[in-house]
Amino acid sequence: MQQNLKVYNSLSSSKERFEPLSPPYVGMYVCGPTVYSDVHLGNLRSFLSFDIIYRYLTHIGYKVRYVRNITDVGHLENDADEGEDKIEKKAKLENLEPMEVVHKYTQGFHDVAKTFNLKEPSIEPSASGHMIEQIDLIKRILKAGMAYETNGSVYFDVMKYHEHTHYGILSGRVLDDLISGSRELEGQDEKRGPLDFALWKKAAPAHIMRWPSPWSDGFPGWHLECSTMSTKYLGKQFDIHGGGMDLKFPHHECEIAQCVVGYGASPAKYWMHANMLTVNGQKMSKSLGNSFLPQQLFNGNHELLDRAYSPMTLRFFMLQTHYRSTLNLSNEALTAASKGYKKLANGLRVIGQLTYPSDQQGVIDEQVNQQIKEFCDNCYHALNDDFNTAKAIAHLFNILKKVNSMHNGNFDIAQLTPETFERMKSTFRQFVQEVLGLTEEKLNNQDQLLEIVIASYREAKVEKNYEKVDSIRNQLKNQGIVLKDMKTGVDWAYEE
Amino acid sequence: MQQNLKVYNSLSSSKERFEPLSPPYVGMYVCGPTVYSDVHLGNLRSFLSFDIIYRYLTHIGYKVRYVRNITDVGHLENDADEGEDKIEKKAKLENLEPMEVVHKYTQGFHDVAKTFNLKEPSIEPSASGHMIEQIDLIKRILKAGMAYETNGSVYFDVMKYHEHTHYGILSGRVLDDLISGSRELEGQDEKRGPLDFALWKKAAPAHIMRWPSPWSDGFPGWHLECSTMSTKYLGKQFDIHGGGMDLKFPHHECEIAQCVVGYGASPAKYWMHANMLTVNGQKMSKSLGNSFLPQQLFNGNHELLDRAYSPMTLRFFMLQTHYRSTLNLSNEALTAASKGYKKLANGLRVIGQLTYPSDQQGVIDEQVNQQIKEFCDNCYHALNDDFNTAKAIAHLFNILKKVNSMHNGNFDIAQLTPETFERMKSTFRQFVQEVLGLTEEKLNNQDQLLEIVIASYREAKVEKNYEKVDSIRNQLKNQGIVLKDMKTGVDWAYEE
Repeated sequence: MQQNLKVYNSLSSSKERFEPLSPPYVGMYVCGPTVYSDVHLGNLRSFLSFDIIYRYLTHIGYKVRYVRNITDVGHLENDADEGEDKIEKKAKLENLEPMEVVHKYTQGFHDVAKTFNLKEPSIEPSASGHMIEQIDLIKRILKAGMAYETNGSVYFDVMKYHEHTHYGILSGRVLDDLISGSRELEGQDEKRGPLDFALWKKAAPAHIMRWPSPWSDGFPGWHLECSTMSTKYLGKQFDIHGGGMDLKFPHHECEIAQCVVGYGASPAKYWMHANMLTVNGQKMSKSLGNSFLPQQLFNGNHELLDRAYSPMTLRFFMLQTHYRSTLNLSNEALTAASKGYKKLANGLRVIGQLTYPSDQQGVIDEQVNQQIKEFCDNCYHALNDDFNTAKAIAHLFNILKKVNSMHNGNFDIAQLTPETFERMKSTFRQFVQEVLGLTEEKLNNQDQLLEIVIASYREAKVEKNYEKVDSIRNQLKNQGIVLKDMKTGVDWAYEE
Repeated sequence: MQQNLKVYNSLSSSKERFEPLSPPYVGMYVCGPTVYSDVHLGNLRSFLSFDIIYRYLTHIGYKVRYVRNITDVGHLENDADEGEDKIEKKAKLENLEPMEVVHKYTQGFHDVAKTFNLKEPSIEPSASGHMIEQIDLIKRILKAGMAYETNGSVYFDVMKYHEHTHYGILSGRVLDDLISGSRELEGQDEKRGPLDFALWKKAAPAHIMRWPSPWSDGFPGWHLECSTMSTKYLGKQFDIHGGGMDLKFPHHECEIAQCVVGYGASPAKYWMHANMLTVNGQKMSKSLGNSFLPQQLFNGNHELLDRAYSPMTLRFFMLQTHYRSTLNLSNEALTAASKGYKKLANGLRVIGQLTYPSDQQGVIDEQVNQQIKEFCDNCYHALNDDFNTAKAIAHLFNILKKVNSMHNGNFDIAQLTPETFERMKSTFRQFVQEVLGLTEEKLNNQDQLLEIVIASYREAKVEKNYEKVDSIRNQLKNQGIVLKDMKTGVDWAYEE
């Protein structure tokens, strides 16, 4: 199957056959969060897209080293290298040491990732943990004559680079357009050209996050870390570099320029970008008041939400749209996703109960056998087509219809060959659980279910049905729960 | 209350009044795990001890910056600076890049910490993330003449240090005894004295984890990271430095020497050490086959265990012994702890149901009021006495007896003043949940409880008790569960 995988490469703006540099190994680098605030739903969609890519590549047999970084220094408030470091600013606001901010939001990100059933990457390196490597890359770029120092800061010389190498190769941006479109920004006088970007920034005296360097006590430019860490852990050339669509320019464009000059190679063979999330048709943004945190969705605490939606509902919702299409969040779509997810979850339960009849010889229904095999093949075809989860879900629902008709007794399992039956079971389970990462969400309503049981218990007592009274007591005892007949009524407790 | 807190200081080998350097701020540094294998129960006990210290200091009003590091490079197999780096060795065994090993076991540690309800530290810095700072400290020590370079490695000169400053101040070890007891080790000829320890090790050609330095491409000595990172995040002098008893010598002794020479100050005011865990009276060790992983305890999968024990049972078990005493693990003790924990968990449920009667004026029972106040005070007295959780638990059980007699109707709540009643509730809840960190463990048995409900439903159908049939259907529907009458019997599904 894996020979047929095609991926959309932003470098060529087309779908290409996936041929890793050293199969069965695949190196994949994904830009992780800047840990200065809670991860929002748009970020989450991007991470989910690469979670699916990681899962599917692993499923079809590749050995993937998946590196997703933590940006804990150097990400300034705007892309023109001005404004404060995002983390340093938040540290001031929250009256914390910057690394406390980093730990708080890294932790928050990890919690959301776990709730959302994102797979752990193989390595999760941080910018602050790779100062020596970043300083080394700056030295290389300076030595190559493609950067210059001004007042203790170092900038990449984009115009000079463009004389030899195409700046804009990934994003398709045209240099002249970029220059004419660039605004004069205060404090930009350190730069020779308006598109030049910082490799090292001298720290202001009050700046806490600072490291010694040959140029000044300061901190690295934001684009630098990804070039350094992808090279350190995946080599100068690796297979996939991913991130959100908003990172294509300037972040990824700058990464390529840095790597070409410093390491002598364009880093990734396939550049992949996940599309954005909109809300009721509008771009998600804090200023429009339609920005969501995952937690707000899970507890329903947001003025645009009618109710809460579970993590798996959100996951299902996002997977219903291909990762390169925009995805629009609305109550209607989420409610539909909730139904859809529960259908699949019920399917998981039902399929677990189906067994092939060992004592029975049925008349094989060739047509249905063929159909089911096609549904299974189609799941792979969908993922092989640039990871199209939306189509895969449709095929899973086709399988599910058959499963339900078997469960209802409307179709006799013995009409399938044992091979078809097993393939149906394993494909459904593997795609739902392993590839799409959708798990059964238990309802966590122990106390409420217990109340229903206790109501039956009370009734049995009133009816003096002591057999039933004892039966309920014993069944609950097996679950570690004892019933207590109090003066005030029936109560329960954990068995001590 | 906080004025009365006393802590045992390993530096003075006595209990001292706790007086932080800059109240209400407290800086606490705790040596974290070396992430080359799963954290074992002994480690966990140590981290739990400092979790309690962090929780209690916070509870009584201190603002604690709690730094717990991740050792991801430099920890060699033996304390004489020989053998391989633990992580590099594991990477070879598991055929992984060292940072994959680091991420895998850091993640494992975080999972266990969460399961065990350990509070997150404020900052969790890693050794590999602080190379520049470590190299800077080595330069300082060299400049002070207390270290020397041999073949690209740098060693701390213990004898020379001892001429001016007492080496052994923390552990009480006597230098002459240490020297006469030291063995000649192969490859030790780089050292001038047998007690000298590595600040920087030159990496062998095949060694992957290496960084450039003025002396060689290599990696820092293990003791260095804690000196560097505690100083970076807490200052040259801070309040508490903690770790397991086995770290007192040589690790903490070396830390003090490094800080005294490099930063001009002995780092911590209070050094605190958690005692060891034994199993059936024997030291826990891999070679004796009595070493436990937390997971083995939670699933009961260990030949020395009769059954599984829950995370909160383990937590309760450990807290029943003071952190400076050895703690012996046995099935008997764990079974008793399981009962004890469930008593407290039931207490939490029961106390949540108690309310002060608003319409009733009882005769105040002065004696019981006085008793309850004393029990509450005693919880604080216990923790103020060097964090004695064992005593605090005994006092909580005294409160619980009163709570249960109120719940059973044997003691009338109106005989308490409203103040006593509220103090009883809040002290019990705060100590169990916030200070001791014990939470109610739900039993996660949705399916089994549903089966009991469905049995009642089936019976009602047989009895044609349609009122009850409908009632059960509706109650379950409110919980998001629908019953289905299938040809094969009654089944349930999540409501779609």
